[in-house]
Amino acid sequence: MRVAILLYDRFTALDAVGPYEILCRLPGAEVVFTAERTGPVRNDAGSLTIVADASIDEIAAPDIVLVPGGPDTSGPSADGPVRDWLRAVDATSTWTTSVCTGSLILGAAGLLSGRRATSHWLALDLLPSFGAVPVSERVVTDGKYVTGAGVSAGIDMALTLAGKIAGDEVAQRIQLGAEYAPEPPYDAGRPDTAPAEIVDGIRAMSGRILQG
Amino acid sequence: MRVAILLYDRFTALDAVGPYEILCRLPGAEVVFTAERTGPVRNDAGSLTIVADASIDEIAAPDIVLVPGGPDTSGPSADGPVRDWLRAVDATSTWTTSVCTGSLILGAAGLLSGRRATSHWLALDLLPSFGAVPVSERVVTDGKYVTGAGVSAGIDMALTLAGKIAGDEVAQRIQLGAEYAPEPPYDAGRPDTAPAEIVDGIRAMSGRILQG
Repeated sequence: MRVAILLYDRFTALDAVGPYEILCRLPGAEVVFTAERTGPVRNDAGSLTIVADASIDEIAAPDIVLVPGGPDTSGPSADGPVRDWLRAVDATSTWTTSVCTGSLILGAAGLLSGRRATSHWLALDLLPSFGAVPVSERVVTDGKYVTGAGVSAGIDMALTLAGKIAGDEVAQRIQLGAEYAPEPPYDAGRPDTAPAEIVDGIRAMSGRILQG
Repeated sequence: MRVAILLYDRFTALDAVGPYEILCRLPGAEVVFTAERTGPVRNDAGSLTIVADASIDEIAAPDIVLVPGGPDTSGPSADGPVRDWLRAVDATSTWTTSVCTGSLILGAAGLLSGRRATSHWLALDLLPSFGAVPVSERVVTDGKYVTGAGVSAGIDMALTLAGKIAGDEVAQRIQLGAEYAPEPPYDAGRPDTAPAEIVDGIRAMSGRILQG
């Protein structure tokens, strides 16, 4: 089972690595990080580099495609090789997935038309412009399209997907191996639980950080 | 504020990238991935490569040191440059931290003697051999030493640390940005909540995967 994780300039690191850590533990999984060109790809903060081991040209028909988000998804969303590749691999994928604003990239490729999908809470209202139906849930499955909410939701998305692919027991074993029993020190992970002034502060900045 | 995240051959990716995603959002944080030598470093599964942008020789006095875990911590635990570096940077660090079996590496460097600390649940009982006091909690703080439990616990560890460093409001803002409101699809993230046969299965394998 081949899993292709797309990298692009200014991707968000945890969007990619959270689900990677789960999916790479699936029995028989071969995960490859891929980008328009092989080589180093920098994240949005500029201080983390993951190497794309294969160019998209080399990845013909992965079983699972995973698209992480980032504060600026205009590059992979534009008319060009990445968008063409997404359309091509989606034609034969078993699962087409995203984390955070990765759903905007799937949307721009025309893959979410008429589909229920989620995204980072700040980006949910951008989904209808791609014909998608925004759903404010952490993990949304519509047919073979599985989308996760913001950044850390990729872990929940991937565990959900692991259960669908390999069964509950395998998924639970992966969860236990990763000791995924989260205990956030604050209850501020969603706009409806975070202090209002913090939500407002992030919303005010979002014009700058979300150009998807 | 300089944050140094140690990489070494066969580190566990999420151990490093989970807390990275939190700490790199701290105001004024300069995060650098460092290893014995600059260049690509492969993770335990062999399919993810993060680039060490600086060698440990170049990182003299970081404010925060973070050591991720991995299934085989013998390399960075051995008498050699990495252990020497850990001792040197710990002498002036504000915070010395670890995720998962990274605490075994800190222990091997002699930094946890008499300290309360945690580790991956499979590795907790190895801590006393370094003079540390094992504590089965997700995040353990003892003075400037902050240790997290297995793999995914690095996110909780880093958010806890973010609160100590920058205050609750900043930490909550980072949490909301990362939409960290986890919803694991199973309650199998700890040995006391996972099905017994899954715990036993992982324990049986652990002789192979934990050589710390």
